[in-house]
Amino acid sequence: MRSVGALIFPGFELLDLFGPLEMLGLMKDEFELHLVAERRGAVPSSQGVSASADVSTTERSHFDILLVPGGAGTRNEVNNPDVLNWVSGVAANAELVLGVCTGSAILARAGLLDGREATTNKAAFAWVAEQGPNVRWRRRARWVEDGLFVTSSGVSAGMDMTLAVIARLHGMDIARKVAEVCEYQWHDDATWDPFAEVHGMV
Amino acid sequence: MRSVGALIFPGFELLDLFGPLEMLGLMKDEFELHLVAERRGAVPSSQGVSASADVSTTERSHFDILLVPGGAGTRNEVNNPDVLNWVSGVAANAELVLGVCTGSAILARAGLLDGREATTNKAAFAWVAEQGPNVRWRRRARWVEDGLFVTSSGVSAGMDMTLAVIARLHGMDIARKVAEVCEYQWHDDATWDPFAEVHGMV
Repeated sequence: MRSVGALIFPGFELLDLFGPLEMLGLMKDEFELHLVAERRGAVPSSQGVSASADVSTTERSHFDILLVPGGAGTRNEVNNPDVLNWVSGVAANAELVLGVCTGSAILARAGLLDGREATTNKAAFAWVAEQGPNVRWRRRARWVEDGLFVTSSGVSAGMDMTLAVIARLHGMDIARKVAEVCEYQWHDDATWDPFAEVHGMV
Repeated sequence: MRSVGALIFPGFELLDLFGPLEMLGLMKDEFELHLVAERRGAVPSSQGVSASADVSTTERSHFDILLVPGGAGTRNEVNNPDVLNWVSGVAANAELVLGVCTGSAILARAGLLDGREATTNKAAFAWVAEQGPNVRWRRRARWVEDGLFVTSSGVSAGMDMTLAVIARLHGMDIARKVAEVCEYQWHDDATWDPFAEVHGMV
């Protein structure tokens, strides 16, 4: 059983967070999910509705897997030293660190991606890249794996990345089964990225 | 501006709910989102983590759009008269009623789908169909539109259905734009349903 700590903050993007957690959460015997925020309780998303954090950053700083979603709120969190320090501390002892969409900006500002390959969403690419000038940003990629750090393109790309992580930990057959249960067409090729063209990245 | 009331209950499925709300919520000037439960506050999902209801069923029973997700918790809610009565009441004055996955079972038990065409997820199809013997269940369909009632197949199918609803209300160009912002490959053909074969439905 691996523990998953998903960071939430005001203005997190709903699908960045809950797409990956849907898929991990279907494997109840393998992953135990937690929503972590600076304070327990309701945290409003970018879309307005709220998730409820069950643990605070001051209460717990060890998880096997750290998940950082994106969203408009990342513009504040990249300047929040308490959050950046917590992310760094969790990452130092984590088996895997996952960033979805502009969640990569938080990982970059925490210094975790320096010298590594990573990607992020296309609509905010320039801003995210500025948060980590020493990161080797990939402009066309559905997701990028570099050691324990796995980062995805925008919003729905987090689901494809999560299935790849499940495949890495539990094998392709299990990952395909999870996709089937979700009736989800998994894009299992990390180089599949038509949205790079759509958003003028290539 | 249309109001969207999304019903949540213990054991709701994360992606059934938050896939559609992600896409509607991107159109902030068009849709105002609410999470509705029997009591305000944290409501645990099937995956364990909680969403936070901002309004209770006793406080409000009018929304322009009603969204009912599925999940393991539907097994209890189909026997919950308070929830079924609330759903019927909201549906009576709604412009659109959306059911995702086993959320269709709640709509069926509320009697709302009698004589109508509808679909649901594939893994629990037999159980859902029993909840509405007078519903014309479609075994192969990504989603089904019958008047104001729109129902989808399992979990991720809710996102394709929601984009079709956005297209119906705001046009195809807007729906395609929302999909692009989410970097989501929209299956825009309601008859696309490879999971009917996967789950032995056809």
